[in-house]
Order: sequence, then structure tokens, then C-alpha cells
Amino acid sequence: MTTIAHAYASPSPDGDLVPTTIERRDVGPRDVLIEIKYAGICHSDIHTVRGEWGPQHYPLVPGHEIAGIVVEVGTEVTKHAVGDRVGVGCMVNSCGECRNCTAGDEQYCLNGMVGTYGVTDRDGTITQGGYSTHVVVTEDFVLRIPEGLELDVAAPLLCAGITTYSPLHRWGAGPGKKVAVVGLGGLGHMAVKIAHAMGAEVTVLSQSLKKQEDGLRLGADHYYATSDEATFTELAGSFDLIINTVSAAIDISAFLGLLTVGGAMVNVGAPAEPLPVNAMALIGGRRSFAGSMIGGIPETQQMLDFCAEHGIGAEIEVISADKINEAYERVLASDVRYRFVIDTATLG
Amino acid sequence: MTTIAHAYASPSPDGDLVPTTIERRDVGPRDVLIEIKYAGICHSDIHTVRGEWGPQHYPLVPGHEIAGIVVEVGTEVTKHAVGDRVGVGCMVNSCGECRNCTAGDEQYCLNGMVGTYGVTDRDGTITQGGYSTHVVVTEDFVLRIPEGLELDVAAPLLCAGITTYSPLHRWGAGPGKKVAVVGLGGLGHMAVKIAHAMGAEVTVLSQSLKKQEDGLRLGADHYYATSDEATFTELAGSFDLIINTVSAAIDISAFLGLLTVGGAMVNVGAPAEPLPVNAMALIGGRRSFAGSMIGGIPETQQMLDFCAEHGIGAEIEVISADKINEAYERVLASDVRYRFVIDTATLG
Repeated sequence: MTTIAHAYASPSPDGDLVPTTIERRDVGPRDVLIEIKYAGICHSDIHTVRGEWGPQHYPLVPGHEIAGIVVEVGTEVTKHAVGDRVGVGCMVNSCGECRNCTAGDEQYCLNGMVGTYGVTDRDGTITQGGYSTHVVVTEDFVLRIPEGLELDVAAPLLCAGITTYSPLHRWGAGPGKKVAVVGLGGLGHMAVKIAHAMGAEVTVLSQSLKKQEDGLRLGADHYYATSDEATFTELAGSFDLIINTVSAAIDISAFLGLLTVGGAMVNVGAPAEPLPVNAMALIGGRRSFAGSMIGGIPETQQMLDFCAEHGIGAEIEVISADKINEAYERVLASDVRYRFVIDTATLG
Repeated sequence: MTTIAHAYASPSPDGDLVPTTIERRDVGPRDVLIEIKYAGICHSDIHTVRGEWGPQHYPLVPGHEIAGIVVEVGTEVTKHAVGDRVGVGCMVNSCGECRNCTAGDEQYCLNGMVGTYGVTDRDGTITQGGYSTHVVVTEDFVLRIPEGLELDVAAPLLCAGITTYSPLHRWGAGPGKKVAVVGLGGLGHMAVKIAHAMGAEVTVLSQSLKKQEDGLRLGADHYYATSDEATFTELAGSFDLIINTVSAAIDISAFLGLLTVGGAMVNVGAPAEPLPVNAMALIGGRRSFAGSMIGGIPETQQMLDFCAEHGIGAEIEVISADKINEAYERVLASDVRYRFVIDTATLG
């Protein structure tokens, strides 16, 4: 049976988001109907609804940091049951057959993974996101949220959490490793918490020292301002791994100089313009400049289990739906510590 | 006792190399005196003597691909004996104490490794390279050339061999892995031979198909022209590893698109200008753009042993000393298959 969901949608690239209702598809044999409790606001929601990343279908309901409760399952569903606490992140489908999907790297599906909102699903409909009371998702793209992890602080883990967990995990953050996190925003604050929980020595590299107290409280061992040139001489050759969460074009070559021999700097944001990289900064220390995009489904579940085990959630400010447009302005002004989460009970 | 060596030296940034004699230092307790038999000509010799990489001390004797025989050892030398077949590469000293030296990464010595020519040695003298009949080197920077590897084809392994072996080895070239080599010159032809011997499936990506027959004979399984745009669509997402031996600024982002998920492109040449890198090309496949510079001493020995075991030497054209200046012009015109090697018996 079709579900009518309350939602907030963007009617056009230049209008505020407004309350609306949308239809969610019938629960198919392998589908799960989720009553959404919380939805995080990601910076990319803003880029997308404003058409900054290409033309969109409107009205568009953004949101890909979703936490809620299963209220109905299809006849063939085996992974989830009514009453389960679950999450949905940036993807709701993929081909399931290519070598990347079968390797658990659905985010790199060779036939195109299906984003949680604003793209054509494999059934031909346009996906609509999490600023909504309900969503229907194929069971393979629904994650378990372990007991002990509250739904509100769990929601942002589905994007900000996995985006930082994946490179930290894959590039070996752990005891004896020095990890730097560039930028202390939505992504950066999760990188600090997760890297600290993995046992690494964590340094925040932020434009200023404004958030220093926060950074240290969240788990950083050191905090430096990148506006101070002395930072780059003092820390030269220090880090095994740098996670760059800043989407603006920063001086990559300067940061590469902070890596030890064999170290890697991993971008999780993607500036639009090409980044000039000094090859000598790489060659002179067997260094890598790399990129990483969210994570696969198995890895996302691993991240949620890790966060539950270490008592890690996002630092959030819960808002009601009527504050979404104001929250967007505050995100753009970097006036959020560190993630807005919509209480979806206020959508209706 | 001081040794007078015959040599070819560059008297100034813009003159031809000319015959000369140089003094080699007394053989100290830990030194080895080598009678050089062959010296390879590396493209970087030309850049250096012409002052293109910064001002030099003249007269300057280039050459860092050295193969010869030990003719005298210091009183405390334990690693080499008179009569041994040995080689010297791009380094003749380093501090030996920093964390990179103690890890066998002397090329990244934090106090500055000592290049084989044109730099100030730790005793204050200026080093002079391999276009010479003799050289004195501290035993730790002298490599064993295994039996079965002829000295003439071994000489270029000391730079071209290790420069390509190191990233192939460290980034896991081997059975089941697809490796592309960009450029089929002095470095590229070694990369093809070594990657093939490691068991990888090897593809050459060259500007044209001119050297295709050679490439396949040297061990490549496939050969593509990068001047043909279809190459980039046909091979998209194919390679686990790309070794870029081209020092000119190529379109890095286009090549990154040829990597599979988690793949790496490793530059072993360093264009002077910063290279524009599209961050999305990295993020969209968890890819890395990396760099690598020669290799450490233990790794260089490992490479020589590997090459001896697999019967790998460089493809060379042996020349007499009076052809050095002509050889330089031919290197600049890419008219060499694939390395000039000077027979040092002709220096005197």
C-alpha cells in the first residue's frame, strides 16, 4: 500500500524549502518501510537543492542521514523486522552485480549507485530523501543501528560518520599513528572522534584556534591554526595520514609536506576546480594524495557497530522542521556545532 | 692514497662535456675504491649539468648508474672485498641516524642524502659522478651485483631499475594485478620488464604505437596510444596501478580515470609545474595519486637480486666516451632504445 509521508521539499533552485506531502512506493517483497525519526542536514543537501551540482527534478526532498524504526517489511525480507532501529545513508540501491557491488563497494557501482534523493531509481521513479516522515528502501541498503546509540546522534553517522570512518580505517589509523584532520565541521568533528577511538594521536588543523577547546574535548590531542605559517614548518613530515574535510580549494602541496614518508592525504570533499599538486611534494616522500567517497554497505554497518561500541555519536543541534531554512543559512555561515538534525515529528 | 681518475666533465652549463682528470679521496677505513667499468646516461644528468635544476659547481662529472669492480677496501670494510662486482646509484651517503635512514629509506634522509654528483658530501667535498674510471664510496652505499648479471646491462638498474622496481613492489604489482606503464623510455622499459617478471598483466600507454613491437617483446601484454582518445574510454577503470615515467605535464585526471577502485597512479618523474588534479577523479574511486623517488639501499639490493634471478638487465647501447655529447642530443630527441651506457675504458 502506498504511504503518504509528510516532508519538506525545495520547490525550485532558489526558493526556501516548504512543507509538503509525498507518496512512498508500495512495500515490495524485499522492501522495508521506515518511520523516520531524525534526519541530518548535510552541506551537500544545500548544494544539491540549489542546483549548484547540476540541474534537479523539483520539488526535491533532500536528506541522506536517516534514522528511524521499521514499521513494515516485505514478504521476502530477512535482514530487518518491524520495530528494528535502522538507518539509511547516501545510497538506496545499486546494480548488485558489478565487481564493485559484489566487493561491498556499492558507492562505486559501475552501473551507477542510486542516491537517496534526486536521482532516478532502478524502478524509474525519482528518489526523495529523508526530510520526511517515512521512506521505503530495499532491505540491502538499510543499516542496523545498534542498541546504545541514540537515533538522533546516529543519523549523521550515515554520511559524516562513514565518510570519515572509511578512509581512517582503510589507511590504517590506529595506535602509534599520527592523524591530522583538516577542518572541524560536520565531517571533521566525526573524524576526530573516530580517529581518537581507533587509538591514533589526533591533530586538528583548522583555519583558526576558535574551536580549539571543542576539538580537544572531542578527542584531539593537538590543535593548530593553518593561518599561522609556522604550523607548516613545525609539523613538517609529522603525519601518517591527513583527512581533508574541507571542500574549498586549499593548498594541497603545503599539506602534503606535513606527511611522513609513505604518508597519505585523503580528500573527502571535492572542490569543483582542479587542485594544483606539486609532484615533488609526492615524490620527495613517497606520499599519496587520495580521495574517498562515503563507504560501502558492509563498511557502513561496521562503522555503526564501531561507534556504538565506543559510545560515539555526532554532536548535534536538534531542530524542528520550520527551522530548516534558517539552519541552511547557519550551515553556510559555519554556525553549527556540528550537525543539525531534524526532528521529523515536527514535519506533519 | 689519492686516486687520479680519468673522467668526462661539464665545464659550464652551456658547454659540451670534455675529458679531464679528477682526484678521488683517500680510501678511508669504511671506504671502497671501485674501478668503474660502465656508467649509464640518465636524462637527469643532462638537466643537472645544464643547470636546469639549479646552479651547479663546475667542472661537474655526472653519472649515477655505476657498475664496476672493487680494487681496494678500507681497514674496517666488511661488506665488500677486492674483486667484487658492485654498483653505485644516485646516493653515496646519508646521515644514517634519522628515522628514514634507520628504516632503510636513505633517499628520504631527514638531514639530506648525498647525491652521487654535484652536492656537498658529509666531508665537505663536492661529489663527482660515474663518467669516470674510479670512485670512492662508503661501503654502505655500495651494492652487490649478483653473478649472472652483466655489468653493462646492470649499470642502468641503479637508477632506472630501482626507480620503477620500488613503486611496483610497494604498490603490489604481481599475479592478478593489471599494471600500466606510461611512457616507454629509459624508466618505462625497465618498468615493463620488472612488472612482467613480477607476474602482473602489463599495458604500455605510449603517445604513439611506434615502439609497440619493442614493448611487447620486453614483456608488455597490451600496448595503447594515448594520442587516441578511444584509449581512455576503452580502458576506463582497468588498472590497479599506473607507473607514470613521463616527466612532462600530462593530464593526470584523465589517467586517474583508468584506475580501478582503490587503484594508484605513481609518478616517478617530477614535472616542474604543479599538476592540476581533479579531486572527483580521486574520490570517485578511492584512488591515489602518489610519487616515489629511487629506493633505499636495502631495497636497491633486493631489486638487483630480483633482476639477476629473472635475467633482467636494461636494453642498452654501449658508447665510447667521445660519443657522450652526441648521446645527450639523442636522449633529448628520444632517440635511444633504451639507455646509453659509457664504456669507461674509453675515458682515459
